[in-house]
Order: sequence, then C-alpha cells, then structure tokens
Amino acid sequence: MDEKILTVIRENGEKYVSGEEICKELGISRAAIWKHIEKLRHEGYDIAATPHLGYRFISAPDRLIPLEVSWKLKTKIFGKKIYSFKETDSTNTIAYRLAENGEKEGSVVFAEQQTKGRGRFHRAWASPQGGIYMSLILRPKLEPIQTALITLTASVAVAEAIREVTNLPARIKWPNDVLINSSKISGILTEMKAEQDTIDFMILGIGVNVNTSKQELPSRATSIAAQLKTPISKVGLSKRILELLEAYYLKLDEDFESIINKWRGLSGTLGNRVKIHAHNQTLEGQALDIDENGGLILRLDSGFTKHILSGDVELIR
Amino acid sequence: MDEKILTVIRENGEKYVSGEEICKELGISRAAIWKHIEKLRHEGYDIAATPHLGYRFISAPDRLIPLEVSWKLKTKIFGKKIYSFKETDSTNTIAYRLAENGEKEGSVVFAEQQTKGRGRFHRAWASPQGGIYMSLILRPKLEPIQTALITLTASVAVAEAIREVTNLPARIKWPNDVLINSSKISGILTEMKAEQDTIDFMILGIGVNVNTSKQELPSRATSIAAQLKTPISKVGLSKRILELLEAYYLKLDEDFESIINKWRGLSGTLGNRVKIHAHNQTLEGQALDIDENGGLILRLDSGFTKHILSGDVELIR
Repeated sequence: MDEKILTVIRENGEKYVSGEEICKELGISRAAIWKHIEKLRHEGYDIAATPHLGYRFISAPDRLIPLEVSWKLKTKIFGKKIYSFKETDSTNTIAYRLAENGEKEGSVVFAEQQTKGRGRFHRAWASPQGGIYMSLILRPKLEPIQTALITLTASVAVAEAIREVTNLPARIKWPNDVLINSSKISGILTEMKAEQDTIDFMILGIGVNVNTSKQELPSRATSIAAQLKTPISKVGLSKRILELLEAYYLKLDEDFESIINKWRGLSGTLGNRVKIHAHNQTLEGQALDIDENGGLILRLDSGFTKHILSGDVELIR
Repeated sequence: MDEKILTVIRENGEKYVSGEEICKELGISRAAIWKHIEKLRHEGYDIAATPHLGYRFISAPDRLIPLEVSWKLKTKIFGKKIYSFKETDSTNTIAYRLAENGEKEGSVVFAEQQTKGRGRFHRAWASPQGGIYMSLILRPKLEPIQTALITLTASVAVAEAIREVTNLPARIKWPNDVLINSSKISGILTEMKAEQDTIDFMILGIGVNVNTSKQELPSRATSIAAQLKTPISKVGLSKRILELLEAYYLKLDEDFESIINKWRGLSGTLGNRVKIHAHNQTLEGQALDIDENGGLILRLDSGFTKHILSGDVELIR
C-alpha cells in the first residue's frame, strides 16, 4: 500500500492529489492514508500535506530500498525482488544464503554499508556509507567453466553505467575492476555453488565507490563524488547497472562476441605492458587480448603467448 | 578410550589379553574396561571375554564408522576425521555444510543409506543399505576451471580400488561413472563453492553399489555382490579408495599426465563410436581422447573434432 500511495502522488508530479481521490482510487480511509504518508516520510520521502489541497510529492531519498530502486526500473527479472539493509556483514553472504534457500534469479541484496565487505582472493573491500554494495542472484544455464564470462559482462555493465551517469572515463582493469584515472572505483566479486556440469547459482557482488569520502577508502581507490566534487544519485546508478546488466545477461548466449568487443573497447589493460601477479609466479609481457574464457592473453618477452586465468595486473609505464 | 582398548585387543590377534594388562597399559579400572567392551560389542564388534584369560578379538563389523575406517588406514589427511550416519538425506549435503563451517580438508562423511542421494544433473542416486555413500571435503589450490581434473582423478581411484579388491573389470565411462560390463557400479558427484579465481572447497561425493541387492537398484545398475555372488567388505573398499585417492590427489600438480594416462587405460569410452547427449544437443562421433580440462574430444562425421565439457555418453555398437 505504501508503494501504491507513493505511486499515485509521484505520478502527479508537482500537482496536489486530494485525500479524497486517493481514498477512491485505492479504497482506503483518510486515516489509513495519513499513516502511510507518515511511514513514507520516515523512510526519507518529502511529501507536502496541505489542507484542502491534499498531498504533493517533493523528493525521494537516495536510498537503496525497494520503493526507490524499483521505481520505473526497466528490467524484466533483475531487481524484481529487493532486500535492503542499513548495515550487514556482506551482501554476498546474505545473497548466498538466500540462493541456497531457493531465492529466484534476479533478486538483489543491497546494503548501505558492510562490516565485512569482501573482494577477490579473500581481501577486504572497504564498505563505508556512501557506496553501492549490491549482490545479484543468478541461475545461469552455463557450465561452471564459463562463469568468468558473466563477471566480464558485469564489468562492462558497471563501466558503461558509470560513463552514462557521470561522464567519467571509466575503464576496466582485467579481469573486472573498474578504474577512473588508475584509481579503483568498482570491484566485482563472483561466488558460486556448482556441480561438475551445472551451476546451482552465482552471486554477482558489485561494489561501487559512489559518494564515499576518499578518507574512508584505501589509497589507491577513489569515489565518483571525489572525482566530480559532488555527490550523485546512488539509486540512479544502481538502476542503470541493473538495466544494462540484464540486457547483456539475457543475450549472453547468442551475442557474446559483441559483449567481448565492448569489454575490449573499455579495457585499460589491453595493449599495455603489464606485470601479472598470479598464483605462485609473476609474469611480464604485453597484454594482447582476452580469450573465449575471459582469460588474459599475454605475450611474454620470449615471444610465446600465455593465457592467464587469474591474477592481479600491474601496468608498467 | 574405545579405540585404545580395541587397538590393544586387536593388535594381539588370536591371543587373549588379560584385563590386568589393559588396566596397566591404559591406566583405567576393570569396571571401566568392561563398560567399553560392552559399548564396542554394541557397535558390532565380536570380542570374547573368558574368565582368567581375559579378552580376545574375534571380528569387526563391516560398518563405515570411524573405528573401522581409520584402522590401519594408510593416509596422511583423508579420513583423519570421519562423520558416520546410519541414515542421512545426502552425505554431500552434510559435507557441504561442514565445509561451510570451516571443516578441514580430508574429513569424510559416510552414511549406510541416504534418503535423498543425488547424482549428476540433479538426478536421484539410489542409496539403499549395502552401498558406500561417502563425501570427502577438499580444499584444492586450483582454479575453478580445473575441478574436472579432480573428478577424473576420483574415477581413476574408484575404478582401481574396485579392480584391486574384487578383480572385477571396472571401466570408466566418461566423465566419471564406473561400470562393470556396461552396468553402473559407481558414480561421482562433485560440488563446490568457489569464487571467480579460487575454490573455497569441493565436496567429492562417491557412491558405490557394493553389497546392494540388485532389486533395489535401477535396471542399468549392478552391485559388486551381484557380480561376485558374494558380499565384500565395504570398509576394505572404502579404505582403498581413500588411500588411492589421496595418493593421486597429492601428486595432481606435478604428475597429472600419469593420472590422465591411467584414466585413458581404464576408459570404456575412448575409441568407441558414441552419442553424446549434451545441454541442448545430441552429437555423434568417435570418442578420440580427453583434453587437459577433462573434456571429451569427439571426432564428428564431418571430420571436425569437438571438445565436450559435459553430457551423457551412449555407446553405439
């Protein structure tokens, strides 16, 4: 009912909607409307209530709550169900548990801050107030070997969404970090439960430093607000990420080559001389391309090429 | 203390051990010894107790309990901790939960029967009394892409253990079923929790139809007892599987080629004309070899070769 009342008022833009109209349209009492309005205000919505005129929508909070994220969200399955936390240990952990209990594909867990945000290789991911911390539940019909493609797709969606919304020159660092001027702005952590031949589910965790104070981030990270010198809408960016991600995800099977091409176009790694810190070794060479599994193709100084599945890239200038 | 008393008596073979000797060696009272002997008898151990002579070991139960499986088990880490159930839903499910809670590599879950035994592709795995149902927790330092190699290694260990213990001509059907004369005798179900670059843990589930009544199995399955016309020791076979499995697992990194060669030698698939029922398609051709990821290399009638990652093989005669 909160959502229905909000929708009526919001759709009317700057016009007042009388209590009577809402009563008629939704079949509830004036007292009930008032209770819901109070609840919405408590959530951070600014709604004017003027005697004889009725209610008027003024502003929405920039909070990653179901009411906000789902408002005019142009997706079919992503974000159709949203779990929202003020604070949690890790949205990936929550999403993993939900998925184990049968949660459907497309459901998303958001948190305003995380106490145990995680990155690749069990590293910590700084998660103070101001960032986007979201985990999407996927049930792809892929083989476990192909999961890197989804992470790669996610990095394309995140980089493009940041570019669209902020005009900042976001670039992808292999495999899936998003950087602005060499500083990390976003990271992706994919986790999955799989059998040998099938994926039970994947959790796509995305962290974006949006309005985060630079003081609260590691030295090699930055935030969108720090770059733009002004905060932006976390809700707006989250929605765009979900929309792009869904569009690419749904055509992953038939049109993977075009997504790979987008990745190549956004890459800040390819063409450069790089050092790769992999499992037990460090390799140096020219980053040539990515292969069909999302691996990095490196040309060593010996002239041989090597496909790297996992590791950290360091650019050498 | 059960284990210590059992060990003293068992090590003495057909000789009696007096209560006095046990008291001295283990520092407990005669009454306490008697209590433990009663408990061991309750577990299925046959122990003679004769006045003035003492105790003598007669026989052990063929049960997959810690006391039995760990008795003279020649491994370093596999089976050092054993969880044993008379009945459970699925040993893989139990092991998965244990691993999520930090259980160490090498711990094994056994059940005498399963109510929801699972096979590949979420199929049911018939799990009546008489079979081996075991799940081993692994924490391999491999990339997720390499997990098929572990399953492949497991099929080699199971087929070899069956051959050693029973002399039956066990053969591997790609990817990892073990057959005797075209009837299924063992299946392997690998499950894992993984991030993009690292495996958190893998659960290696192994089911073997040992002393199972053929009436309780699907029509295309058989059991060792049905083939030999006599039951064998489930404990003995389980121990040999754990020993071979550990030996191969520990040298997986350095000597994978020799394991692949063993797989090739045991394969009932390679060299044959086969139909592969894969995700959305059925392919027919000559099974040539397996590749470095454990995929099956198929030569199609067009002359092209194709690497198949997952599917069901049907032999064409």
